[in-house]
Amino acid sequence: MTDFTRTRALFDLPENILYLDGNSLGPLPRAVRARVADEITHQWGGKLIRAWNESGWMELPGKVGDRIGRLIGAPKGSVVAGDSTSINVHKALTAALSLTERKIILSDSGNFPTDLYIAQGLAAALDRGHELKIVAPEEVAAAIDGDVAVLMLTEVDYRTGRLHDMAALTARAHAAGALTLWDLAHSAGALPVDLTGAKADFAVGCGYKYLNGGPGAPAFLYVRPDLQERIAPALSGWLGHAQPFAFDTAYRPAAGIERMRVGTPPILSLAALDAALSAFDGIDMADIRARSIELSELFIAEIERRCPDLELASPRDPARRGSQVSFRFAHGYAAMQAAIAAGVIGDFRAPDIMRFGFTPLYLSPDDVREAASRIETMMTGRHWQRPEFQIRARVT
Amino acid sequence: MTDFTRTRALFDLPENILYLDGNSLGPLPRAVRARVADEITHQWGGKLIRAWNESGWMELPGKVGDRIGRLIGAPKGSVVAGDSTSINVHKALTAALSLTERKIILSDSGNFPTDLYIAQGLAAALDRGHELKIVAPEEVAAAIDGDVAVLMLTEVDYRTGRLHDMAALTARAHAAGALTLWDLAHSAGALPVDLTGAKADFAVGCGYKYLNGGPGAPAFLYVRPDLQERIAPALSGWLGHAQPFAFDTAYRPAAGIERMRVGTPPILSLAALDAALSAFDGIDMADIRARSIELSELFIAEIERRCPDLELASPRDPARRGSQVSFRFAHGYAAMQAAIAAGVIGDFRAPDIMRFGFTPLYLSPDDVREAASRIETMMTGRHWQRPEFQIRARVT
Repeated sequence: MTDFTRTRALFDLPENILYLDGNSLGPLPRAVRARVADEITHQWGGKLIRAWNESGWMELPGKVGDRIGRLIGAPKGSVVAGDSTSINVHKALTAALSLTERKIILSDSGNFPTDLYIAQGLAAALDRGHELKIVAPEEVAAAIDGDVAVLMLTEVDYRTGRLHDMAALTARAHAAGALTLWDLAHSAGALPVDLTGAKADFAVGCGYKYLNGGPGAPAFLYVRPDLQERIAPALSGWLGHAQPFAFDTAYRPAAGIERMRVGTPPILSLAALDAALSAFDGIDMADIRARSIELSELFIAEIERRCPDLELASPRDPARRGSQVSFRFAHGYAAMQAAIAAGVIGDFRAPDIMRFGFTPLYLSPDDVREAASRIETMMTGRHWQRPEFQIRARVT
Repeated sequence: MTDFTRTRALFDLPENILYLDGNSLGPLPRAVRARVADEITHQWGGKLIRAWNESGWMELPGKVGDRIGRLIGAPKGSVVAGDSTSINVHKALTAALSLTERKIILSDSGNFPTDLYIAQGLAAALDRGHELKIVAPEEVAAAIDGDVAVLMLTEVDYRTGRLHDMAALTARAHAAGALTLWDLAHSAGALPVDLTGAKADFAVGCGYKYLNGGPGAPAFLYVRPDLQERIAPALSGWLGHAQPFAFDTAYRPAAGIERMRVGTPPILSLAALDAALSAFDGIDMADIRARSIELSELFIAEIERRCPDLELASPRDPARRGSQVSFRFAHGYAAMQAAIAAGVIGDFRAPDIMRFGFTPLYLSPDDVREAASRIETMMTGRHWQRPEFQIRARVT
């Protein structure tokens, strides 16, 4: 069983803050500071260009990919870290569409908008009849038919936390002759994921949420091993070439997942993610899931008891939720600002969602009770009516 | 006149190393360490998610873009930092091709391979007859005809240092009805660039060479102001949306250059680049150019006098060179390893190019003379014949 007191000590958290927003930006793992300082001073500063050979920089995207792979049921050599989630969606979608003559990209209205935008931009650029079809989350299964090229879903809804059944939907897609692209932005590091068991074709995800890699940390991309040699990357950059340092004028893809690399990776940000992932060393994701459910169930019970104005927006059944809990409240934006002022950091998602993330590595049941207590004080005191909380900031 | 003793003190360079490879990876600017430590500890660690609003992270791609813009003759609001050079080539090329019915992408064999690879991957993905045509550098002007959609060139040849005439070739392309995409990887921070004066349409470049932003630092993208509203990004990510935090399901491009943003930027790497760029504050690129020519002319004279086996591979006329000098030598790989062992760091480019970069911000005439002296000792002693220098490393 994971010792969550030990893992809590791996993070630097500000005094008197209850951080329920690790699903948006994970907090600072203590290991990051020394690692990045070493990369700057001793590797970059001391070794200069030689660090590409001597400091493991060239292999870092694959090494970090394998560390993430362990958390999402992906074998070694099937995940590579780099670029942003959006760009990895583009890579995966272009690859998937190259494997089929079908034209429909099926997604749902609970997908994070950037995935939908990338599909729209790609369809417009390809200009040969591809179409993004968006249905309600509960209508996805019924919408999978013989016209669907790719089923593109985010496993955990960024607003409500609703959890799709990856294995069942992937099986249904495959039965209909469709490929699948799963966005694990709110899954990786949050709950057990079994890409291999689900036979998922492609997956992408985010390095800066539950993986705690820092602001804008590189994202990741998974390609099912037997598909890797069948896809020719559209973003065919030199570090995905079979021999980057031969400087040929013709592109030849590298073997396996390496072909999905593009340009030179941002080493400082990638090293921060690598260091952050050490918090997961030896951790069983089943322990994380059990504790996450314990925390989120406790939070729902406490909030519903203390704050009757907040309406649960997440599935009540924890088996159908990711690692977040959302409540609807008409004055949600102002209320979240008031909660933050009281030291409870969650976030707001339009139009009326107050969102709270539960991250066992650094949150305890006592934290959850204290957060609920402060939210109660805020709600019963109607602090959200104060003028300073009415102003709408751009990022929340 | 720039005080190059002052600028030298802005960099941390290892003792007894003569670093002539700033054209591959710029050395560590002293300002980077404190800046990145502050971003980690006080912004990320201390403010957590609030740093996106309070620490300028959301605006950083445009701020860094404008800092670079000053060095390349681009007005405010026309350059954005982010992603890799390869991905920015894809963005620019997709945008350019959307503005024309023509199918030919004209480039030269001196272009860096990743630019060619990206064009090949894009043409294959679009699958409607686009073709990459590669000619010799000296044949580019004559190859610009009424079939060319985009003239895509790197201004300074990564191997020889040969400098294209951006203004003349752009004018010729425009007269033929073609657009231009300039890769400034070996230009930005190395010599004066006037994108506005040359009427260039698109430009990309690298943050980790002459701009000293650190390993894999974010790249940049320029779009001529009057074209910005005419292009719909194919990599249409949420941070290029008009209202990212409205979370609409339909993509609408942001105004101006902001639409060329894609996903969440890697803040630690981007902050390092921002800090590195402070070394250029108040610097006139004409001063850099004059000093760069002084250094490279001195190096050519010293090497030709001391090392007759090395054959100049760069143009002899400094007006036709970038800020590097290359020599051909049949045993160039081993000789470069021997030079590095003697504390003179340049790099090797297949098949036989020994490449040396001259970077006035931190290199002096005395450094150049000392480097030439050590290379002479290495060459006359035939140190490159030693067995330890025969092994071919992957990155050089």
